[in-house]
Amino acid sequence: MKLTITEKIFSEHAGKEVLAGQITQSNIDMIIGNDITTPISIKAFRESGAKKLANPYGFALVMDHYIPAKDIMSANQAKISRDFAYEHDLPYFFDEKDLGIEHALLPEKGLVIPGDVIIGADSHTCTHGALGAFSTGMGSTDLAYAMITGNNWFKVPQSIKVAFNGKPEEHVYGKDLILEIIRQIGVDGALYKALEFTGDTINYLEMDDRFSLCNMSIEAGAKSGIIAVDEITKEFLKDKNLRDKPKYHYSDEGANYERILEIDVSRLEPLVAYPFLPSNGKSITQAVKDDIAIDQAFIGSCTNGRISDLRIAAKILKGKRVARKTRLIITPATQKILMQAQKEGLVDIFIEAGAVVSNPTCGACLGGYMGILGAGERCISTTNRNFIGRMGDRSSEIYLSNSAVAAASAITGKITDPRDL
Amino acid sequence: MKLTITEKIFSEHAGKEVLAGQITQSNIDMIIGNDITTPISIKAFRESGAKKLANPYGFALVMDHYIPAKDIMSANQAKISRDFAYEHDLPYFFDEKDLGIEHALLPEKGLVIPGDVIIGADSHTCTHGALGAFSTGMGSTDLAYAMITGNNWFKVPQSIKVAFNGKPEEHVYGKDLILEIIRQIGVDGALYKALEFTGDTINYLEMDDRFSLCNMSIEAGAKSGIIAVDEITKEFLKDKNLRDKPKYHYSDEGANYERILEIDVSRLEPLVAYPFLPSNGKSITQAVKDDIAIDQAFIGSCTNGRISDLRIAAKILKGKRVARKTRLIITPATQKILMQAQKEGLVDIFIEAGAVVSNPTCGACLGGYMGILGAGERCISTTNRNFIGRMGDRSSEIYLSNSAVAAASAITGKITDPRDL
Repeated sequence: MKLTITEKIFSEHAGKEVLAGQITQSNIDMIIGNDITTPISIKAFRESGAKKLANPYGFALVMDHYIPAKDIMSANQAKISRDFAYEHDLPYFFDEKDLGIEHALLPEKGLVIPGDVIIGADSHTCTHGALGAFSTGMGSTDLAYAMITGNNWFKVPQSIKVAFNGKPEEHVYGKDLILEIIRQIGVDGALYKALEFTGDTINYLEMDDRFSLCNMSIEAGAKSGIIAVDEITKEFLKDKNLRDKPKYHYSDEGANYERILEIDVSRLEPLVAYPFLPSNGKSITQAVKDDIAIDQAFIGSCTNGRISDLRIAAKILKGKRVARKTRLIITPATQKILMQAQKEGLVDIFIEAGAVVSNPTCGACLGGYMGILGAGERCISTTNRNFIGRMGDRSSEIYLSNSAVAAASAITGKITDPRDL
Repeated sequence: MKLTITEKIFSEHAGKEVLAGQITQSNIDMIIGNDITTPISIKAFRESGAKKLANPYGFALVMDHYIPAKDIMSANQAKISRDFAYEHDLPYFFDEKDLGIEHALLPEKGLVIPGDVIIGADSHTCTHGALGAFSTGMGSTDLAYAMITGNNWFKVPQSIKVAFNGKPEEHVYGKDLILEIIRQIGVDGALYKALEFTGDTINYLEMDDRFSLCNMSIEAGAKSGIIAVDEITKEFLKDKNLRDKPKYHYSDEGANYERILEIDVSRLEPLVAYPFLPSNGKSITQAVKDDIAIDQAFIGSCTNGRISDLRIAAKILKGKRVARKTRLIITPATQKILMQAQKEGLVDIFIEAGAVVSNPTCGACLGGYMGILGAGERCISTTNRNFIGRMGDRSSEIYLSNSAVAAASAITGKITDPRDL
């Protein structure tokens, strides 16, 4: 049989050939929990009578949503995870001592390996497919099952092949590619499917763009997003202290796809997804015509809080000043990214431009903390979701974009094409 | 008549001699509002029918408590201040574009001048007395009255003279001096009085220590704290773009004091104020004997979030690691302090030690956000109040200390004498 990369990963884990549509058991290479979903997993774990994790080295607990605690409730919720981490002496427990958004932190720490099967109780767990792994979000009790047994069941997803062609124009990034896909197929266009990103465009995408691309697969309803390992992946992994030996899988020529989606990237402009769906993408040219004033610009999240995002933003913000009635919040995704940004002088550029640079956190993106929107406020944001009330008041509005558009818009106070600055 | 410095400031403002105990009208040189108290002032201002501020250059609006917004309520509350600031084109409006805790930010911006009469709708407004100004906290409607009329009434406070003598030992700071005063006279020991800090010890105190000292005058119930201008003050003011010309006042020999408090500083150790009152000061030696494990260490606030605090902490934390079960949160008081800390490599030292460095905010100190305590958690904190539930859950405990004690305790996970490291 000709197999897709996703089928190959599951086949390798099953020890036999499994195809899309089949139910399979798989051991889980990495389970990812965070401070808001893991307490439920811990409750189920305790209720099962389990005493030990099946594989402590296959479990990462990342405190990233409401940390440092924003109120008593989040402090008490965090305590549940802290107590569990100390009790089980977790090797991969990341709290205030090593802050980072899980989907940026795990690859950075060498905890995501090509060929892995990864689950996390967070919908953006699909991010890790950028490293040639199968990675998907699950519920907290599904997580508990894997914590106890070390494995879980899956229906092997059918794949949609996305064939990107052409070189992206200036200020067209991974974010724009995924916004374009979602624009084309809708927020349920890839329901329970694996989005397999291929084509010569991939050669132009750095890892940060690839993470950003895979990260929003879920916004098209996909179970996972995946990009096969190439030289850029290997370069990224080179200096990491990897948890395990990588396994490289590649889709066979003639493998079975549910459909093939061809996208000519060279014709793409930066995109802006209008409220209230990520599928409401318009070209930046259209958005500029629509003259959309903004109260807040946000650069950060598991989608676009990486060093390349900060570099792009800094290049635009250097020597400029955020518009009087606009605020700009920049949230580096991990402490390592923050330190790198400091080293390169980016943080100084941001503060001098009038931005707030926060500690790493999922904060603003999910309406958690660190930049919540008030009634009727409008935000241009590099995050992944613009649902009603996602970042605050139900009457607020979110426009999704890449980091260049967000930075340019912060300066002018309205949605702006970075190529015009 | 022989007058105190406080009587002289009010006399100069009244245009005639006014003495302690007398009621006087005074024009207000600077009104300080923040994001949680100013909305009430704005409401009163609008209800009065006033159209303009009496003196826009005598009004600073500092968004420091819940900024960037932590939730919808704080976002909507901030909006009231933002709208007012834009409507009145406020010259001194500080939001995300120039974040800072008001009591650190105003002196930094040259908005506090020796000889000023300053009011703020925040109890720690007494901080600014460190620059030889009369500065006190008032209610939000009192603030509104001054916003509308440019003045307000005062009962000129009687003064308590604090005569410090001797050089502070290593790791004894301004914070320890004020904790010692409060330990001696209690949280109501200076009710409605001006605490006037004098003596040869003052020569050993940098401005940061003086701000810290005056800042906690309110914790002894004082209306204000004040230190006469000397060479150290003038040096601090030298490179500031001052709002106005300084007026230097000095207490007359033989002026009338309610009492004189003599403190031999050379015999002081670092102090730790136990829950639940700032007056519960014990020596660090006693605290170490009591073997007090901590869940969190916090360095920041209008009391101790200045560059000298960060330098002290960095010296102790360099190359060390925060204890496994302890978290350390460091909140620089202003963006300028944060940038200076970055420049000196302090932020790298903190992050490498496992600390979180946050954006400037009042956050954790008042149980706002950025480090709230859960049930039963214990915190060593450089802040000013350890009342029940001040930083979070009502069953949590706060121990107040200087920055050296907090940093040392973060490393060991229990209250620790920095001189022992």
